[in-house]
Amino acid sequence: MQRIVVEVMPKPEILDPQGKAIVNALPRIGIETFSGVRQGKRFELTVDGEVTDADLAAAREAAETLLSNPVIEDVVSVYAVDAAADATR
Amino acid sequence: MQRIVVEVMPKPEILDPQGKAIVNALPRIGIETFSGVRQGKRFELTVDGEVTDADLAAAREAAETLLSNPVIEDVVSVYAVDAAADATR
Repeated sequence: MQRIVVEVMPKPEILDPQGKAIVNALPRIGIETFSGVRQGKRFELTVDGEVTDADLAAAREAAETLLSNPVIEDVVSVYAVDAAADATR
Repeated sequence: MQRIVVEVMPKPEILDPQGKAIVNALPRIGIETFSGVRQGKRFELTVDGEVTDADLAAAREAAETLLSNPVIEDVVSVYAVDAAADATR
């Protein structure tokens, strides 16, 4: 079993109230490091068996049509990860 | 200017109604490829200048305390990306 990760972020020019709220809250927990925060979405799409090019193409199509709003969001990346391998970096 | 990406996903054992809704909607746009979908969050934290180990540690702390709910979510990854380099994969 493998997974395809799709990452979606608000377009840079779009106001991100969620991100603003976070960057204003961080000093309250003693973190002054970050000058900005933006919040987007991360999807994991499960594929039975190995990921094929057709699967990646289907994931891109899903990303562009269902998983993101092209008017206000960008699809940042679409890539396969092995479900067994821990996706932590 | 660099960014740190924080990725948060619902714990595997947690019900993901958003993901269920997506996996049920995909066939309606002709995509039958995926047996499961889970939706999480992706944050980009902006750092002025180069990312240091201290910045990464601050990002992990923010991830564990403010950007995720440890009861129902896992912090999947925390890593630096160069703001100039397009994060698309």
